[in-house]
Amino acid sequence: MLSYSAPLQDMQFVLNDFLDSEQHYSSLSGCELVTTELLDAILDNAARFAENVVAPTFQSGDEHGCTFDQGVVTTPPGFADAFHQWGQGGWQALTVPAAEGGQGLPGSVGMYVTELIGSANWAWSMYGGLSGAPVSCLINGGTAELKQRFLPKLLTGEWAGTMCLTEAHCGSDVGLLRTRASANADGTWTITGTKIFISGGEQDITDNIVHAILARVEGAPAGTAGISLFLVPKIWVNEDGSLGESNRVSCGSIEHKMGLKGSATCVMNYDGARGFMLGQENAGLKVMFKLMNTARIGTALQGLTMSERSYQGARTYAKDRLQMRALTGAKNPDGPADPIIVHPDVRRMLMTQRALSEGARAFLYWLAQLSDLVTQGDKQQAEEASALLELLTPIAKGFCTETAQEVSYLGMQVFGGHGYISEHGMEQVARDNRIATVYEGTTGIQSLDLIGRKVMGSGGQLLRNFTKIIHRFCQEQQHNHDMAVFIPRLQELNGQWGQLTQELGEGAVENPDVIGTASLDYMMYSGYVAFAYIWARIALVSQNKLAAGAGGADFYRAKCTTARFYFERLLPRTRALAESMLADPESIMALSEDAF
Amino acid sequence: MLSYSAPLQDMQFVLNDFLDSEQHYSSLSGCELVTTELLDAILDNAARFAENVVAPTFQSGDEHGCTFDQGVVTTPPGFADAFHQWGQGGWQALTVPAAEGGQGLPGSVGMYVTELIGSANWAWSMYGGLSGAPVSCLINGGTAELKQRFLPKLLTGEWAGTMCLTEAHCGSDVGLLRTRASANADGTWTITGTKIFISGGEQDITDNIVHAILARVEGAPAGTAGISLFLVPKIWVNEDGSLGESNRVSCGSIEHKMGLKGSATCVMNYDGARGFMLGQENAGLKVMFKLMNTARIGTALQGLTMSERSYQGARTYAKDRLQMRALTGAKNPDGPADPIIVHPDVRRMLMTQRALSEGARAFLYWLAQLSDLVTQGDKQQAEEASALLELLTPIAKGFCTETAQEVSYLGMQVFGGHGYISEHGMEQVARDNRIATVYEGTTGIQSLDLIGRKVMGSGGQLLRNFTKIIHRFCQEQQHNHDMAVFIPRLQELNGQWGQLTQELGEGAVENPDVIGTASLDYMMYSGYVAFAYIWARIALVSQNKLAAGAGGADFYRAKCTTARFYFERLLPRTRALAESMLADPESIMALSEDAF
Repeated sequence: MLSYSAPLQDMQFVLNDFLDSEQHYSSLSGCELVTTELLDAILDNAARFAENVVAPTFQSGDEHGCTFDQGVVTTPPGFADAFHQWGQGGWQALTVPAAEGGQGLPGSVGMYVTELIGSANWAWSMYGGLSGAPVSCLINGGTAELKQRFLPKLLTGEWAGTMCLTEAHCGSDVGLLRTRASANADGTWTITGTKIFISGGEQDITDNIVHAILARVEGAPAGTAGISLFLVPKIWVNEDGSLGESNRVSCGSIEHKMGLKGSATCVMNYDGARGFMLGQENAGLKVMFKLMNTARIGTALQGLTMSERSYQGARTYAKDRLQMRALTGAKNPDGPADPIIVHPDVRRMLMTQRALSEGARAFLYWLAQLSDLVTQGDKQQAEEASALLELLTPIAKGFCTETAQEVSYLGMQVFGGHGYISEHGMEQVARDNRIATVYEGTTGIQSLDLIGRKVMGSGGQLLRNFTKIIHRFCQEQQHNHDMAVFIPRLQELNGQWGQLTQELGEGAVENPDVIGTASLDYMMYSGYVAFAYIWARIALVSQNKLAAGAGGADFYRAKCTTARFYFERLLPRTRALAESMLADPESIMALSEDAF
Repeated sequence: MLSYSAPLQDMQFVLNDFLDSEQHYSSLSGCELVTTELLDAILDNAARFAENVVAPTFQSGDEHGCTFDQGVVTTPPGFADAFHQWGQGGWQALTVPAAEGGQGLPGSVGMYVTELIGSANWAWSMYGGLSGAPVSCLINGGTAELKQRFLPKLLTGEWAGTMCLTEAHCGSDVGLLRTRASANADGTWTITGTKIFISGGEQDITDNIVHAILARVEGAPAGTAGISLFLVPKIWVNEDGSLGESNRVSCGSIEHKMGLKGSATCVMNYDGARGFMLGQENAGLKVMFKLMNTARIGTALQGLTMSERSYQGARTYAKDRLQMRALTGAKNPDGPADPIIVHPDVRRMLMTQRALSEGARAFLYWLAQLSDLVTQGDKQQAEEASALLELLTPIAKGFCTETAQEVSYLGMQVFGGHGYISEHGMEQVARDNRIATVYEGTTGIQSLDLIGRKVMGSGGQLLRNFTKIIHRFCQEQQHNHDMAVFIPRLQELNGQWGQLTQELGEGAVENPDVIGTASLDYMMYSGYVAFAYIWARIALVSQNKLAAGAGGADFYRAKCTTARFYFERLLPRTRALAESMLADPESIMALSEDAF
C-alpha cells in the first residue's frame, strides 16, 4: 500500500522562503486578504482532504477502474463520495471570481491545492479538473443568463463538465475536426458528431454533465478559422436552472488505458444535441485557448504530483529494505544487511528524484505567481508576466512531464522486482504518469511551440526577457563566494542558450528542418537551464537562512546539497543536448518513407 | 491490434554481412553443418512459428492474464497449445548438446530464435526460457542417472521448469537466503522454504514442473559460501521416468504485475519437498552462474525484442496517421493532412528507435557468437571470447534494457493519445518491457559488476581487451575517407574510456564511493561507446556493399544514414555521462538518512 503524506514543509519553503507569497498576494488587486495564515490554513485543509479522503481511492480506483454497460459508466467505489465532499467543501469554486459566485482566491492557490489532491489521486482529481473547463468557457464566453443557468451547480460540484476537442481523426491537428453545428430558430444550436478521449464524458457522480464542445458551424471556413465553441448539457437545463429532458448525448464506450483507470475516458456521441454557443461564431478557439494555457501548467503539475508520489514511495522503501552491505563498511551491523539507502546508486536515484521534483515545485509555483500577475497585477506586471509565461509554459509542460517519467521510472527501479508488483503502487504511479507527456499537447508539440512560435516567432525577444533575468541574478551573485559552485556555470549556460538560438535561427534560413529536428533537444536544454536558475536561487535562499541562523538548518543544508547534485550530476546533460541539436538535419530527414 | 513481422532482412544482414556467420560456424568444432542455408531455414521456420502461433497470444495473453484459484494457475487461452507445438517442433531442445539428447545447434542459434519468439510474445516465451534452467543445471551438475530421468521430457516440452532463487527478504543479496535442505537416508534431500517471483512456478501447460532451487544445507556456512542447488519436481519422478505421487510443492499465490501478465509469477512453498542435489554441497552458485551469464544476455535480448516490436508499431502508425502539414510544404496535398512521418520530431523518434534496436541486434548477435567460441572454439578463442564476454555481458544487460525503455517510450509517444489505449498494444510493449532493467540483476547491479568486479577488479585488463580491438579498427580505417564521420570520434571516445577509468580508479583510492556514484554513468557511457564501434562497423560493411554494387542499395544506404544519426544525435550523450561520472561523490552521499 502506497501512502501519501502532503509535503507541506517543502511547499511552505517554496511559498514563504523562495517566493515570498505574502508580499506577492498583498500586491495583487483584490488578494490582500491572502495572508500567510490564510494560505497555511487552506493548504492544511487541502492536505487533510488529500490524505484522508482522496488518497484512499488511489489504488482501489486503479484496481476497480471504470466500467461501461449500455451507455452507463460506473466509477470506482468512493469516487462519488469524495467528489461530493469536494464540492460541498467549496473546493471546486476556490479560484472562481467572487463576481461569478466563487471564492475569489487567486489562481495560484488553486494550483497548490491541485498538487495535493493530484498527488493523492490524479485520476480522481480529473473529474473536478475537467469541470473547470465549462466554468472557464462560460466565464470567458457566456452571457450573464447562461452563467446564471449553469455556473452555480458547476461550482458546488452538483454538476460536472468536460472539454470536447479530439475526434478519431484529429488530435494535435484540431483544424481537421468535423463535428458540426446548425442554428435553431430559438437561438440554441444543434450539435452532431463524435468526440473521443473525453475525460468524465459520462459518470455516475453528478446529476448532470456540461460539455464544452468545439464544432464547426455549417458553411464555416475550413481549418482552425471555422471553429466555434458550444455548451451542451447531458440533461437539458431550463431557464430557471431546473433539469429538463435528456439531451441527445450518449456515451458510446470507454477506453481501456494503461493507467488513470479511475478516470472515465469516453467516446461521446452528439446526435443532434441541443446547446448554446459560447463566444463569437468561428472564434471558439480564442475562448478555449485561455483555458488551454492554464491546462498546460496543470498538466505540468501532474508531472510534479507523480514525481512527489514516486519519491515518497522510494525513500521509504530505501530506508526499510535490507540488502547487502555498504562498500565503506556495515552501516547496520546488527541486522542481516544494510538498508539499501546506503548504496551510492540508490542514493543517486533518490537524489535525482528530489532534484527534479523539488525543482519542479519551485518552478511551477513561480509560474503560478506569474499567472496571478497576468490577471490581477498592474498593467506592466501583467505584460511582463504574460510574456514570460508564453516562453515558460511549453517548457513547464514539456520538461516537467518528461522528467517526471524519469522520476517515476527511478521510483520503480529503487523497489527492484517489487516495483513491478501492483500492490506497492509504484508501477501505478508510472502508468498514471505516462499520459502526461501526451495530452494537452505532446512533448513534440510543446517543443515546436517553444522554438518555433515563441522563440523564433518573437525574433528571440521572449527568450531574452528570461535570459536577462538570469543574467541579472548572476551579476548580483558573482562575488558571492558561497555561490561559486553555481553562478559561473549558470552564466555560461545562459549565454549558450542565446548562441544556440541564434545558430539554429541562422540554420533555419537555409533549411527549415533545422528547427524541427532540434526542437526536442532545445526544449529539454531550456528546461535544464530554467531549473538551474531555480536551483541556484534555492541555494541562495537556503544559504541566507543558514547564515541568519534560522531554525531547520538540516532542511536548508539538504537544499544546498540537492542544488549541488543538480548542477554536478544532471546539468551536464545540457552538453549532450547542445551538441545534438546542432547536428545536420540530414540524418533525420534523409530516409524515404519506404525505408521505414 | 499490433501485428508482428519477423525482421528477417535485418537479421540476415547482421548474420551474413556483419558477422560472417558461415565462416564462424565452419570454424566451430561440431558446427560445420550450420550452413547459411540451414540457418536461413531455421530462422524462416522460427519466424513463421513466431508470427502465426505465438504473436496471436500477445494481446489476448495480456488481457486474460494468469488466474489463480486454490493453488491452481490457469494460463491465458492459447498458451498451452502454442507451448505444445513448440515442444513437438523440437525448439526446446534446439541448442542442447546432442550427447544430452538435444539437437546440438550452437547457443547463438538459440538466441536468434529467442529474438523471434520473444518479440512475438515475451510473456509466453518465458515458460520455455525458464525450462532451460533445470536443463542447464542438470547438464552442469547432474549425474547421468538424473539426466536420464529428467532431461528427455524437459526437452520435448512435456515438462517445464523453473529457477528458484529469490525469497521475500532477499533479491539481489542471495547470500541471505533461508530455504533449507536436509539429507535423507536414501540420498535425496528434503527442502523447506518459500520462494517468490518464480516464473512458471505453477501452470496448466505441462504434466510436471521441475524446480531448480537454491537452498542452504543445515549447518552450512552463512552467506553465499553455504548455498547448494537442488532439483525438486512438482510430481515425483520414479527411476524409470514415470510419474509418482505429488511432491510437497505448492503455489501460494501469483503476483499482480505491471506487465508480462501471461507469465505466471508465483509464490512457491516447499514444505518438506523431496529433491536431488546438483553439483557439490555449498557450491550451488557455481553451477547456477553458468546459467546466469547466458540469462543476462537473454534478458538483454528482451530489450531488443521490445524495441523491435515498438518500432514496428510506431513506423506503421507514422505512415498511416494524417495530422498537420510538413513545414517544408504539403507532402500529401490531396489528403486532409500529411502522414506524421513527415514531421522532423516524429522522424527523430523513429530514427532513435532504429539506431538503438538495430544496434542492439548487431551487438547481441556478436555476443552470441562470442558465447559459441567459449564453448566450442579452440582454447585461445575460448579464452579471448570469455574475457570479452565478462566485460560485455553487464554492458549488454544494462545498456540494451535501459535503452529499450527509451525505445518503447518513444513508440507510445509516436502514437500520441492512442499509444495510451490498450487496443493498439504499444502500452503493453512498454509494460512488458519494464521489468527487463530489474530481473537478472538490476541496472545498478550490472553497473557495479562492470566497473567494480570486471574493470577495476582486473586492473583494467578486461577493458583494454576491448579498447584494443576498437583501436585496431580505427587504425585500419583512419585513411578511409568515407569513414571520416565515424573514426575520429570513435577513436576519441575509446581513448576517453580509458582515461575515465583511470581517473575513477585513482579517485577510489581516496574515496570508495567514487565507484558507486559513477557506476551507472560509467555503464551507460560504455554502452554508447560499444554501440559506436558496432555502428561504425555496420557503416563500413554497408559502404563496402554499396561500392561493390550489391543488390538492396536502399537498405545499405539506410544503414549508413542510421549510423550517422547514431553518431550525431545519440553519441553526444557521452559528453554528459563523462562529466557527471567524475563529479564529487559528496552531493550523492552527504545527506543523512533522516533528510530523505
